[in-house]
Parts: sequence; C-alpha cells; structure tokens
Amino acid sequence: MRKLLDVGVALAEVQLVVFDFDGVLTDNTVTVSEAGTESVNCWRSDGLGLSRVASLGVKLAIVSTESNPVVTARARKLNIYCVQGVSDKRDAVEKLCAHYNIASSYTMYVGNDINDIAAFQVVGWPIAVADAYPEVHSHVRCVTSRQGGRGAVREICDLLYQARTGAMREGSSHVR
Amino acid sequence: MRKLLDVGVALAEVQLVVFDFDGVLTDNTVTVSEAGTESVNCWRSDGLGLSRVASLGVKLAIVSTESNPVVTARARKLNIYCVQGVSDKRDAVEKLCAHYNIASSYTMYVGNDINDIAAFQVVGWPIAVADAYPEVHSHVRCVTSRQGGRGAVREICDLLYQARTGAMREGSSHVR
Amino acid sequence: MRKLLDVGVALAEVQLVVFDFDGVLTDNTVTVSEAGTESVNCWRSDGLGLSRVASLGVKLAIVSTESNPVVTARARKLNIYCVQGVSDKRDAVEKLCAHYNIASSYTMYVGNDINDIAAFQVVGWPIAVADAYPEVHSHVRCVTSRQGGRGAVREICDLLYQARTGAMREGSSHVR
Amino acid sequence: MRKLLDVGVALAEVQLVVFDFDGVLTDNTVTVSEAGTESVNCWRSDGLGLSRVASLGVKLAIVSTESNPVVTARARKLNIYCVQGVSDKRDAVEKLCAHYNIASSYTMYVGNDINDIAAFQVVGWPIAVADAYPEVHSHVRCVTSRQGGRGAVREICDLLYQARTGAMREGSSHVR
Repeated sequence: MRKLLDVGVALAEVQLVVFDFDGVLTDNTVTVSEAGTESVNCWRSDGLGLSRVASLGVKLAIVSTESNPVVTARARKLNIYCVQGVSDKRDAVEKLCAHYNIASSYTMYVGNDINDIAAFQVVGWPIAVADAYPEVHSHVRCVTSRQGGRGAVREICDLLYQARTGAMREGSSHVR
Repeated sequence: MRKLLDVGVALAEVQLVVFDFDGVLTDNTVTVSEAGTESVNCWRSDGLGLSRVASLGVKLAIVSTESNPVVTARARKLNIYCVQGVSDKRDAVEKLCAHYNIASSYTMYVGNDINDIAAFQVVGWPIAVADAYPEVHSHVRCVTSRQGGRGAVREICDLLYQARTGAMREGSSHVR
Repeated sequence: MRKLLDVGVALAEVQLVVFDFDGVLTDNTVTVSEAGTESVNCWRSDGLGLSRVASLGVKLAIVSTESNPVVTARARKLNIYCVQGVSDKRDAVEKLCAHYNIASSYTMYVGNDINDIAAFQVVGWPIAVADAYPEVHSHVRCVTSRQGGRGAVREICDLLYQARTGAMREGSSHVR
Repeated sequence: MRKLLDVGVALAEVQLVVFDFDGVLTDNTVTVSEAGTESVNCWRSDGLGLSRVASLGVKLAIVSTESNPVVTARARKLNIYCVQGVSDKRDAVEKLCAHYNIASSYTMYVGNDINDIAAFQVVGWPIAVADAYPEVHSHVRCVTSRQGGRGAVREICDLLYQARTGAMREGSSHVR
C-alpha cells in the first residue's frame, strides 16, 4: 500500500476531512464497566494537529455508525462537528460535501473497516489507517503510518498542514 | 497449530458458536477501580461481525465461569444470549446445543484457557484464540490469527460468513 | 537470568508465596481519572492459578508499600490476605513467615523493583517478573517468562501446582 | 540520537526538572467516558524515582498546556508542583527558574511534541522521551530509553540520582 506520507504537496487540495470514529479517532477497543458504561481510548496529540489544520480553513467532521455519548464527548473536546447514528456513511459524506459546498474530489474520508467502503468510493481522497482491515485496502488511495488512536489523525493533520504551508519543502518527514 | 483461516468452506456447517468471555471477547485483562468495580477491554469491530453471522441464522451464545455485570453489559450491547456463573462449561454447551436443537458436531466453542478444555471436548469445532494458553492446543482443531479482545471474534465471524455466502471463493483472506 | 520454568520439581518445597502488588499483580500502570481516583490493570487468569495453588495448602499473601483501596479490592476478589502501607517489606515478609510458622527458606517473594530487594534477601525463593527493573536481577534466583499483570502470577502458580502434583513429569511446559 | 543513560555524572549539575504532562508522565493516550470525563495512563514506578530525587534537593515541576483535573490529581499524588493552562511553555519554564533562583543552564525540560520546542530552547538540558515526535529531536540534547508513561520519568530520576550520589560509579546501568 502507498503511504500517505509519500503523497506530498498534492494533499494541499484537500478542503474537507471526514473521520470515522472507532478505529480512527480511537484504537478500536472499548472499555465496558459493570454498569455497562463505555469508554474509548484516544490519542492526546490528535488535538494539536486538528486545531492547526482547522486554523488553515480545512473543514473537519466525524461520522459514526453508532449513536454514543463517547463520540459526542470526544468531538466536543476536539471542537469538531460530528454526525452520529449514521446507517449510510456514503450519504452522510455527500451531505457534508453539500453543506460545506466542497467538491467530493477535494474531500478526504478516513476509515478502518468494511462499513467505510461506500464512503471511500465517493471521495477523492479515501484513506485507511495503518491497522485498518485489509479488505478496505483496494478501496483507498493510501494508508497512514500510524495506527488509529495512536497518532493516525495527527499524522494526517501534520501532512495536510505541511502541504498547505510549504513546510514539506524543508524535507523533514514527521513520522518515523 | 492449524490456522482457522486455512479451513475454508468446511466452516459453513457450523450452526452454533459458543464464546468464552474473558480472553475471547476481552483481552483477558481486568481494570479494577478503588471502589472495586471492574471493567474489561473489548474490540469494537466484533459487533459488526457478530450481527452479520446472526443474520445468516447462526446461533450465538456466551458462557462465563464468573457471574459478573460486565458480561451482562457486553452481551446486551452485542445482542447475544449469555449464561453466567457456569461451573461446568461442558454441561452449559451441551444444554445450549439441546436448546437450539443443534448437533454438537455442528457447534463451535471458542476458548483460551484450561477451564475451557471440557467444553472443547464435546464440540465438533473447538477453537482457541491466538493468545490462548498453550495447554489447550492439543484440545482444539485450530487457532485464530488475532488475539482475544483484539479481533479474534470478528475473524471467526468473517470466516463463517465467507464460508456460508461463498465470499471465500473470491480468494481474499481477511486477516493479515 | 535463569527462568522459573526451568526450575522443576524443586519448587514443590515452597509453602508460602508473598506477592508485591504494583508491577506483579498489575502491569505497573495506573489510570488516573479527573476525580483523582485510581484504577489498575490486572490479569484475569491469575485467579484460576491462585485458587488451584491455595487448594494444595500453599499460603498466599500480598504486600504493598502504598495503602490503596485498589489493593483491597483486588485482594478481596482473589481471596488473598493483603498487608498494606508497608514501609519495610522485609519486616512484613518475616512477620508473615512467623504468622504461618513457615521457614523463610520455603518462602517465595515475587517483586519487580528496587524497593523489593530487602524482601528478596530474606527468602529462599526470591523471584522477579519478566519486566522487573534490572537492578533487582542480582538479588533473585530466577525470573518469570511472562510480565507482571500479564500472566506472571498465573505462571508462578501453574509451576508450583505442577511441581506439587507431578503434572510436570508429563513434560509439558505451560509457558510459551 | 544520544541516549540519556550515556551522559553520566554531568547530570549531577541539574537542579530543576520541568516535565511536560501528556506523553511524558502519561503514555499520551486519553480514555474518554460516556460522561465526557477523561482518564490518563501513568507509570506507578515514577513515584519512587521522583521522591528519591526530591530528597536530594532537586526541584521538580509539571507544566501542561491544558488545564485539566487529571493533571492536578496526578501532581498531588506525586507531590509535585504543577502549572496548568500554559499557553507559552517557554515563559512558564523561565518563571520556574526565576522562582527557584536556578539558572536555566542547570534546568532540564522533558517533552515529547512540537509545542515543547520553545521550552527546549531555553534550558541547558532539553530531553525528549523515547517515543517523542521526531520533529523535536533536533532541539534536544538526548532521549530517554523508555517511553512516556512507561518508565521515562523514572529513568530520568534514577540517572539524576546516580549522578549525584555516585552510584553510577558502580557501573551498573539501570535501563535495559
């Protein structure tokens, strides 16, 4: 699979990034307590990356199949718009493109599982996290070097930021 | 050990799958709080796999030695029948076979530890997760490629689904 | 370092096992919530091992430097006596030997850090977990193959059980 | 990158150590519950190291960009002064140097991400944890062998302690 970090300045055209939640903003685990409450495991450094990209005018959104308070909680902390209880992710992505008046060819969708395939098919930049289910590989343009909930979102944000600000020309890759 | 993903279409005969809880639906850790409440760590993608297999008519159940609210909570979320406080897992499996009127030869039991051996011995499809205790290896037919609480259940569901729907003939393995 | 699983039947002489808590019964991490409450991460399969060894008459105890409700909670679940707020672990171990009237030469102490060294020095069986701080290595007789909170306690229990019941003669090692 | 454990007795000159919180005292993950409460994952053995170094008179502080109750909770447990809601870490470090009347050349700052670079630039001992973002490497003097939230802080404390007490002359490295 082609690595996202090898893409370079072409990434500067991305104007909207839509993230799947579980397995992208989280490490795909869920902690279940005796009371049945759920918790998810996220990456603290995602926040810095997301705020930098948003400051450049790139639009950001989260879509989640499940309707779950943990998604609301994390999205609020990251200050990102989220759409939950999405049975049809392709439809949700197309509506976000329409809402922001951004062509799907300039939209990135980041996912990890087979229920992301329909959404991958309608965007110009379908991207899988490093630990995505291999069945999605034939549907994405490239993969991140870091795993979901372990730096994948930050990596995407850094590369978008570098492509748009020209920091990339300095020749330093930010991912080991 | 033989890998489950090398079994192929023979899996289509499985009509009932009984899962041990700790170490199969969880990563076998338990988080203990100051108040003594316990939490367990599960794999979000198991849900999608289980619902797909259930939609084909395959029966699913969880058995757990301990009687613990975390099992109830997770089973309810996954919409799977669970039997707790099971001192004799072999007996519990046999009762499930009788309840669903499914021959034990068409039943799969998935476990990870020596207290699963008696149950392994009465089913046609005894399966261990990748990180099971090695003492169980001589009692199982094959092992999963992914670990408990890290995709083992999803892997089993995907392979059962592919065997029954013929997706397997497309030749794509779903596990790295 | 010599591995505990290579010791063999000599382990049958152990009559009392004293476990340090953090890093032995846990993976040495601590989860801190906004409210300041702490949680620790344990291994579910430790329980089965401990109850089997206790059933043979081997005495078990936990000593912890800190006085913390999580230790109480875990010890109660495992049904093991625990001593907390221990400033002098050597003294605590000697008192446990006296209480159970068991010679220190037949006592095992399991630890992971430099504050366990004094206790290691007064027992016949000083044992470190696989991921113990290397400074303790010169003070222990052997190390486990599995890490603290990831099977080390279960490994010790299984080897003690096998040494006492003769299961070891079957020649099967229980640890990968 | 040069390893901190190869520095030796030169570390004895350090009189103040300022730690970034997320990714240094934690493993850089954050657990988010349905209620939106956050928890972080720390290393139990950090406490023993910090108290030993403090007993030698070395000053310790935590700075955090975010203002978050988890930082307060962990700092109170470790008995370390913390400064939160820090928009300018360089300024915070300089104020700490002034407060303790310690020259910045004798101050160590430990970080993991690009928002630590300004602080790295004003101290004599800029140090990155093993799993820091590579962009910071050109701004630090050396890196720890252990990761943030997995022993990095304890490693730093042990090396400072050994440099000041001469334990280092015994020739035993404490890190694998």
